[in-house]
Amino acid sequence: MSGISVDLNSDMGEGFGAYRIGDDAAMLDIVSSANVACGFHAGDPEVMAETFRKAKERGVSVGAHPGYPDLWGFGRRNMPYTYAETERLIAYQIGAAEAMAAYAGHKLTHVKLHGALGNLGQQNRDIALAACRAIKAVNDKLVCLAIALGEQERLAGDFGLDVRSEIFADRAYTDEGFLVDRRLEGAVLHDPDLIARRILSMLETGAIETITGKRLKTRIDSICVHSDTPSAVEIARRLRQSLQAAGVAIAPFATS
Amino acid sequence: MSGISVDLNSDMGEGFGAYRIGDDAAMLDIVSSANVACGFHAGDPEVMAETFRKAKERGVSVGAHPGYPDLWGFGRRNMPYTYAETERLIAYQIGAAEAMAAYAGHKLTHVKLHGALGNLGQQNRDIALAACRAIKAVNDKLVCLAIALGEQERLAGDFGLDVRSEIFADRAYTDEGFLVDRRLEGAVLHDPDLIARRILSMLETGAIETITGKRLKTRIDSICVHSDTPSAVEIARRLRQSLQAAGVAIAPFATS
Amino acid sequence: MSGISVDLNSDMGEGFGAYRIGDDAAMLDIVSSANVACGFHAGDPEVMAETFRKAKERGVSVGAHPGYPDLWGFGRRNMPYTYAETERLIAYQIGAAEAMAAYAGHKLTHVKLHGALGNLGQQNRDIALAACRAIKAVNDKLVCLAIALGEQERLAGDFGLDVRSEIFADRAYTDEGFLVDRRLEGAVLHDPDLIARRILSMLETGAIETITGKRLKTRIDSICVHSDTPSAVEIARRLRQSLQAAGVAIAPFATS
Amino acid sequence: MSGISVDLNSDMGEGFGAYRIGDDAAMLDIVSSANVACGFHAGDPEVMAETFRKAKERGVSVGAHPGYPDLWGFGRRNMPYTYAETERLIAYQIGAAEAMAAYAGHKLTHVKLHGALGNLGQQNRDIALAACRAIKAVNDKLVCLAIALGEQERLAGDFGLDVRSEIFADRAYTDEGFLVDRRLEGAVLHDPDLIARRILSMLETGAIETITGKRLKTRIDSICVHSDTPSAVEIARRLRQSLQAAGVAIAPFATS
Repeated sequence: MSGISVDLNSDMGEGFGAYRIGDDAAMLDIVSSANVACGFHAGDPEVMAETFRKAKERGVSVGAHPGYPDLWGFGRRNMPYTYAETERLIAYQIGAAEAMAAYAGHKLTHVKLHGALGNLGQQNRDIALAACRAIKAVNDKLVCLAIALGEQERLAGDFGLDVRSEIFADRAYTDEGFLVDRRLEGAVLHDPDLIARRILSMLETGAIETITGKRLKTRIDSICVHSDTPSAVEIARRLRQSLQAAGVAIAPFATS
Repeated sequence: MSGISVDLNSDMGEGFGAYRIGDDAAMLDIVSSANVACGFHAGDPEVMAETFRKAKERGVSVGAHPGYPDLWGFGRRNMPYTYAETERLIAYQIGAAEAMAAYAGHKLTHVKLHGALGNLGQQNRDIALAACRAIKAVNDKLVCLAIALGEQERLAGDFGLDVRSEIFADRAYTDEGFLVDRRLEGAVLHDPDLIARRILSMLETGAIETITGKRLKTRIDSICVHSDTPSAVEIARRLRQSLQAAGVAIAPFATS
Repeated sequence: MSGISVDLNSDMGEGFGAYRIGDDAAMLDIVSSANVACGFHAGDPEVMAETFRKAKERGVSVGAHPGYPDLWGFGRRNMPYTYAETERLIAYQIGAAEAMAAYAGHKLTHVKLHGALGNLGQQNRDIALAACRAIKAVNDKLVCLAIALGEQERLAGDFGLDVRSEIFADRAYTDEGFLVDRRLEGAVLHDPDLIARRILSMLETGAIETITGKRLKTRIDSICVHSDTPSAVEIARRLRQSLQAAGVAIAPFATS
Repeated sequence: MSGISVDLNSDMGEGFGAYRIGDDAAMLDIVSSANVACGFHAGDPEVMAETFRKAKERGVSVGAHPGYPDLWGFGRRNMPYTYAETERLIAYQIGAAEAMAAYAGHKLTHVKLHGALGNLGQQNRDIALAACRAIKAVNDKLVCLAIALGEQERLAGDFGLDVRSEIFADRAYTDEGFLVDRRLEGAVLHDPDLIARRILSMLETGAIETITGKRLKTRIDSICVHSDTPSAVEIARRLRQSLQAAGVAIAPFATS
């Protein structure tokens, strides 16, 4: 697979005040892009500035990672905002992230929706539109990092936005291209070797392998690795090594 | 006084959710610049977008109005943030305001600190430095709208920032150029005619008149009128009429 | 109708920090029971203590008025909490209200759910159960003030809780006994005389009159008057006068 | 030292939503009293109910642990609330904790101030008074767990409140009986054996040993062990073992 290059992305800066989630320092040595929480579902100006600064030092590209204003629920719950309100929540967070990146001497390359908002951006056309409108209004140079085969991936081009497609390293897919519900058996993969083999296979075939063995053709620009589980760092590190061993270069899809 | 032009500025967008403070619609017909709360001491993405949109419609210039993250205290309390933390709180809010202004089709011209932060920016060199550094890092084209004779007014030039000086329409000044403590007799003026005569006199002499009758020479680029008291709209309207009747033009100090 | 006595209740203490909604001082001279916000959808320890103190001075009975933790949405949105989480949110707020009432020298007589939570308590069996369990766990002497003909009214007795039924002074009812959606024509009544005549008629017949003219038999222990609209005070005052003129006594359903 | 009994207390329930601090499950097997965060500086109804439930299962006494409403600063910062506002903040939190304890089948025995509020309760007479007034107003049966030799310890009796005195296992003391500033060398002790020997010596002599070797006579009813540092559990466990080996019984100062 020499000649192929792919991005590894991970969510970061998810602390708040004295609280911390994930080992950002370790992950920044593994990934090529970091999605930085913007202070609504997690993150605060301190955490944001520190995360952007460390990413800059390591040459990691950075994106805004807007979520619902739901610190308690960590942005994982569908919140009762209208589409228009959601559009403005996203715009606000992109602006805040741009400022904190500039403050830390770095510059955003992309926007990726967080948690429940990310899932809605994949499945709900109105939320996908809200996200695209917010990005276009604030900075249309920012790349949409969207879930492969979802609504936002489909719609971003209509707004003249650049879009990149991501798949998840450790999550099983349904035949419709959605993530298998976390509560179901087999939804989350834990074996680092299995995860690495599966991702290599998807990159080779240019397709997502579903839980029933189907293949869904898709662009794969980036692979999302989690940072908030105990074994996350180990899984990410093994995936990076396996990809490199197979001749796949790890590089951000965009640089500032 | 024909040929003289001065800006009238007021704080706006100070609602939150279902709560409202001040009659923004009325004030936007009176002032030439609006300082828009950024979601920390007041304001939210809905209020911000609406305020920027209405200001654009009426040709009112807009600025970010960052405050301490103290919704309960409305940004009027000195909060225990370090100078460095304060710098980042300000940077974050400027970015959020830039995004919401862009979203609403408008563009920021300036930054003015709110409440306790504003008073500290006048009196405390480290907070003034924090504000200047934040503005410089995020967007050094933004004008510092600073309290006349204060630290931020003095320091902004060292950062290559453009600075404009404001005086308060309805507040008495000490001989040191500080505002007389609100709790003291005579600290806040209520008579619209007296307020208008006093401001005209200050503009003519290019000096602040203190509570003892002293005159402190200063630039006067803008006059701050309040929006959150019952009679605020009436005072502002009368001041505008008196200034215009005396041949003083009302115009923003900067336009986007 | 002499000999009949009914309670007038209203939501109060809905400010937060510098924000205020409603004219509590005026309403406390009109109603016999006040439902006091507990700091989640509105209210804070200052507002709570002041509201309980003023209610005590005027002999107005007080209840806890728990809502979703949604200050931005003023508790009017269905929030994604599980039933068990909702149960605990309610328990917490009852405890906080009991403490603030004690602090102010008063004592709670009842609990009434706020906003979206109140509507769910009427229509959703699981939320009604959650509310009953929370009240029982914290203080089973507290009366459930429940929406007439709703789930909570039906279920409270199973928990050994005392229940009182309320109707709304200014809202139209569907034939199912639900409130007509606020967005529909005629959902909210504005004419004080019409409101007073309608309520008197309901008290006489012991039945809710629906928007199609049907009558739904129900207990009517209390009439809810709003406090957050401009004309609320006027409507409440006229209703009180009309009731008294017709010989109906205004008295709390319970006293501490 | 047989015949002597002392309480071991620790702060718990300091998570919020998805965030966690400290290993509460481990600490509950070591201490005899738990101070439970009340939702202002940390904690939420979920964490509170779970902490009270687990404490009940293990026979651990529980207290309310009110702090400033400062989730970001974890209650460690002096916040600009007036004394009267502070009194009401404390009252509110005690009520919330009482309700959640009742909900979980447990019952509060005490109140201990958290973080910056705790330090102020030791050194500032007005904050100590505020705390005593709040406890008296809400439930005068609750014991004040106060820092030895501080203002609250001195004043609680004047309010008819029961008071118990605590010392800190791992903190050095000044000759004035205050904690040595955390930023100074030697302020925090890390060696479990040293900590255990030092506490045993203090229990034997009935005196605090200061950093210069002075002895300050005091009641010692409880020893505070931290729960939020990596080695906290180990230090607490060793201290418990050492105390028991020396014939000191570990028992709560009050049971519900």
